[in-house]
Amino acid sequence: METLDAIKSRIKVASYADRPIPEEVLEQILEAGRRSPSSRNQQRWTFILVQERDTLQRLSRVWRGAAHIADSAATVAVAAPPSDDPRTIASVHFDLGQAMMSMQLAATDLGVGTRHASVEDWQLGAQILGLPDEWRLSWMMGLGYPADRDVKPVQSHNRKPFNEVVHHERWGG
Amino acid sequence: METLDAIKSRIKVASYADRPIPEEVLEQILEAGRRSPSSRNQQRWTFILVQERDTLQRLSRVWRGAAHIADSAATVAVAAPPSDDPRTIASVHFDLGQAMMSMQLAATDLGVGTRHASVEDWQLGAQILGLPDEWRLSWMMGLGYPADRDVKPVQSHNRKPFNEVVHHERWGG
Repeated sequence: METLDAIKSRIKVASYADRPIPEEVLEQILEAGRRSPSSRNQQRWTFILVQERDTLQRLSRVWRGAAHIADSAATVAVAAPPSDDPRTIASVHFDLGQAMMSMQLAATDLGVGTRHASVEDWQLGAQILGLPDEWRLSWMMGLGYPADRDVKPVQSHNRKPFNEVVHHERWGG
Repeated sequence: METLDAIKSRIKVASYADRPIPEEVLEQILEAGRRSPSSRNQQRWTFILVQERDTLQRLSRVWRGAAHIADSAATVAVAAPPSDDPRTIASVHFDLGQAMMSMQLAATDLGVGTRHASVEDWQLGAQILGLPDEWRLSWMMGLGYPADRDVKPVQSHNRKPFNEVVHHERWGG
């Protein structure tokens, strides 16, 4: 799929089809994350690919909005080093956002739907995934073929108008 | 360009060609940012497209690594609401990372090179761009046709090995 079409086709998957994702497709999605840029190329991330149903069900409890993870065909659980420093937090999570977007667009290109989940109970996440103390479950991305639609460009995106979010030369320009 | 090729072609541009980027190309890059997903669709971002040479030169002083901004054909200055809450900081910057990655891949698709800059002196950034107090210059992305290479997939990416960053089912798996 053309890149600009993938960008226009990526929307939150509403419901996952009960169909496994081939290993080579999952690998291409993870490879997109691995290739992602990061501050000073630090790559402060570990991607844990979860496909066991029992583990997916347990992971769906780390955040009130994560119920969909239980039904995903696979989930990428993203761990990163925790920090108390606001600049470090911003930098780490900016990089994680970049990696997640790369994976979402690779998935879209391959016909796979994606849906984010945040993490509130990271202690539970650490217990489920066996994370060491220096790593924290930070974000998750559910993957699955969409049950309800084909992956194709969507027109309406429920976003603020272009001229509201884009200014020229300076604020209000 | 195919999405997976764009993902493999995106690298930091080493030097910008002295060639302007057509308006419709810049608009497609910004549109990719606008369409990006965000936590509860909050869209906590404003993209300021800077093309005036004098402003680019001044912006190149907001961070020690931002000198390249002075030579960019255009720069997207990304402003976001500041916060003292670590969870909010993580969430805002994760979303900004997603938007920046979308814009990078759209740019790559259109043959335009990209390069990040962080922001240290956000007070100077606010002064240059006329930002209100509720907004803070957070990241910048320099844009320009690469002077030194064509945009095409690269093999070597200087990343940690796949098996080091990707685990299966649980930590170490």
